[in-house]
Amino acid sequence: MTGDVETAIAAAREFLGDRLSTNSSIRAHHSHGEDTQTPRLPDAVAFPTTTEEVARLLALAFAHRVPVVPFGAGTSLEGHVTPVRGGLSIDLSRMNGMLEVNAEDMDCRVQAGATRVQLNEHLRDQGLFFPVDPGSLDSTFGGMCATRASGTNAVRYGTIRENVLGLTVVLAGGRVVRTGGRVRKSSTGYDLTRLFIGSEGTLGIITEIGLRLHGIPEATAAAACQFPTLRGAVETTIAVLQSGIPVARMELLDEVQMAACIAYSRLDGLEALPSLFFEFHGTEASAAEQAARAEEIAVECGAKGFRWATDAADRNRLWRARHDAYWAALALKPGHRSLTTDAIVPISQLDALVLGAKADIEASGFTAPLVGHVGDGNFHSVILVPDEPGALDRAWALDRKIVARALSLGGSCSGEHGVGIGKREFLEAEHGKEAIAVMRAIKSALDPRGLLNPGKMFLDG
Amino acid sequence: MTGDVETAIAAAREFLGDRLSTNSSIRAHHSHGEDTQTPRLPDAVAFPTTTEEVARLLALAFAHRVPVVPFGAGTSLEGHVTPVRGGLSIDLSRMNGMLEVNAEDMDCRVQAGATRVQLNEHLRDQGLFFPVDPGSLDSTFGGMCATRASGTNAVRYGTIRENVLGLTVVLAGGRVVRTGGRVRKSSTGYDLTRLFIGSEGTLGIITEIGLRLHGIPEATAAAACQFPTLRGAVETTIAVLQSGIPVARMELLDEVQMAACIAYSRLDGLEALPSLFFEFHGTEASAAEQAARAEEIAVECGAKGFRWATDAADRNRLWRARHDAYWAALALKPGHRSLTTDAIVPISQLDALVLGAKADIEASGFTAPLVGHVGDGNFHSVILVPDEPGALDRAWALDRKIVARALSLGGSCSGEHGVGIGKREFLEAEHGKEAIAVMRAIKSALDPRGLLNPGKMFLDG
Repeated sequence: MTGDVETAIAAAREFLGDRLSTNSSIRAHHSHGEDTQTPRLPDAVAFPTTTEEVARLLALAFAHRVPVVPFGAGTSLEGHVTPVRGGLSIDLSRMNGMLEVNAEDMDCRVQAGATRVQLNEHLRDQGLFFPVDPGSLDSTFGGMCATRASGTNAVRYGTIRENVLGLTVVLAGGRVVRTGGRVRKSSTGYDLTRLFIGSEGTLGIITEIGLRLHGIPEATAAAACQFPTLRGAVETTIAVLQSGIPVARMELLDEVQMAACIAYSRLDGLEALPSLFFEFHGTEASAAEQAARAEEIAVECGAKGFRWATDAADRNRLWRARHDAYWAALALKPGHRSLTTDAIVPISQLDALVLGAKADIEASGFTAPLVGHVGDGNFHSVILVPDEPGALDRAWALDRKIVARALSLGGSCSGEHGVGIGKREFLEAEHGKEAIAVMRAIKSALDPRGLLNPGKMFLDG
Repeated sequence: MTGDVETAIAAAREFLGDRLSTNSSIRAHHSHGEDTQTPRLPDAVAFPTTTEEVARLLALAFAHRVPVVPFGAGTSLEGHVTPVRGGLSIDLSRMNGMLEVNAEDMDCRVQAGATRVQLNEHLRDQGLFFPVDPGSLDSTFGGMCATRASGTNAVRYGTIRENVLGLTVVLAGGRVVRTGGRVRKSSTGYDLTRLFIGSEGTLGIITEIGLRLHGIPEATAAAACQFPTLRGAVETTIAVLQSGIPVARMELLDEVQMAACIAYSRLDGLEALPSLFFEFHGTEASAAEQAARAEEIAVECGAKGFRWATDAADRNRLWRARHDAYWAALALKPGHRSLTTDAIVPISQLDALVLGAKADIEASGFTAPLVGHVGDGNFHSVILVPDEPGALDRAWALDRKIVARALSLGGSCSGEHGVGIGKREFLEAEHGKEAIAVMRAIKSALDPRGLLNPGKMFLDG
């Protein structure tokens, strides 16, 4: 702990009281996310409850040159929340207020520490919901914005990027900026909202978020269909997208993941084969029509069967199984850690990527089920890593191989998990030297002292 | 003309030959768009055909401190293309190549001077189309990106912002940056694509654009419905959006605009009343169902009738009339100029904005029909300005009043036309001092000599 940090901590304690903690177990909790990076303790953890408190913290951090790292639900898979240079972890989880809901305009404003599950609970009587759903873990909106998250509904509803109307962000030094507004579109000024979305805490700390909402669909239909080959599933995906069926969700599970789900979630009647799970939203008639057309396409592409989840209980069992896919994967190898890949390619390249990845996985000796947002061209393999010397390095080597393949197919190293620490080495290969230079110019302009989440996004940041 | 400009022009002529022009009628054509700002001649007009040529031009401009202004179709309504400090107008209209179409991935790449009509012609046999449609005039993709354009299809398909996958941009000094990629989402790096979209040529010159495409819908249904009051039309809009009907287009025309359209486009059977025009995309069954549900809602909100455009000819007549609304408005007052407003508010505030604007228009003595993208909360009034001393100033005063009202209702001064020269004075009121400071910091970082489209976006830029 340097002298500067001590001064900053003492000053922060003056207005935060016991919401500024140097307790070792609290610091340990804020030393890592759900990742496999090396943990690092922050010097202290602050629990602000207002934008003004965050602003005062960033003013102190600037004055005393203390690094700051925002912390939400701590579910980052790429090391975003690890304070690699120590300093202050700013935990926003107590800023979880629902600030306003405008039902007529289908929008709302929340604090950054609020979560999707909490918001949808809050909205339920108003016939509205927020669709972006990053998976197994209930993340905060601040974290979702910072990592440009998405999830299973992105095919129809877009990612977080398309569903944020505006932000309140605290900048280095403590200035507070409001971006965007409540209008559904605007062509005035640089798109600061989109600049902060995906900036991973390196340009500012997001404290409030204006969100677009959607009407809860009148009817929902779900289905699972199974294929003898992966190519059939990918061809079905492409044909469904081209047909214009407004599919809400379209998820791929490979035969390894299906075996895991069948065991974990008791999915009777389904086999350990490459499978697509579908969900359709609309009126009763249109959801049924969408499902019937998707079935027709799937059968043409060689589907072995199209199993309807006709009632809500069946449907929930199917999607519960999809949401629990991560836990089902972990249950395959008790005592193992996991490293989750996140490659994404143009959809036409998905089978090349997935088949290549499966060959790489086989050669590596790891068990690594595949599950993915196939409608976006994105999939995850959950590499199960035994507690053995060198195993984690070998798992990272496998991840690198999958990323290299994705990049060579015109893809990206991360569809929705972000760069953090784990994907920094690929940023230049993916975006090119000139794009990185532009990103660095923006970073320097907005964070001249390099105090905002250092060590993330850029290799020498 | 300064000595520096002369040197730059001579150097540019060396590689452009007669594609570098100082001809006075060509310079005059590049001195203004479709706006009411004071024209200003560029010193020369360049017609590059490749990104490399644009890069060489920007390198020369940087070396000799010559301002550069990109020019596309010249359809800007806010003075974007006027070279207010002289210098070089870079006309991208000869860069109109279709670079690639990837039908399986539903994406394509075009040069910045290509137009929407040209692309849709090119795509027709592949069952694909590009939906963003800014209205009466066929604009270039470069111009659409630079102004963050949208149009009648945004309710369902989003604006240009949601439909661009990546860009090639030439920066100040001539560096070439590629942003984004071909994947449908990515969470790696700052969102440079969205930063350049809406930057109006002030951060770089866009030379190539990757676009998302959509399947041509199997069936299209259209309808017009008329209301005794404007409130009924706005209530219908809100209820249709909340019901989740995936309406493709929903356009409002007030009684003045309807009278103009009836006269100009011979819309038999429709009256001079506030009206909504709808379009629904889907299968035969789902388009018909969407239309039936919208009709139900409209009738509940007091619609006087819901007139179906059942065959393609009827449908095309209706939407042709909507597209010709601008010309129909101009035909009301031959010999007048026009000044088009572009205010936008949260949808619940739309009737307050429109009724207030109508009172302001009445008090002003101008004829100014209203037409708008009501599903987005955006409308235009076409203020018809007589050729009389002081009339243009009074028209600008009316525009200012409408903008002030929009801002007080939580809106924006421009939904889709951009800031340019005409809306600079509102930028700070709309976004706040801090947001402007961030925008200026980015501008300084990327254009340190202030040569990229100076005098636009910022009051003292």
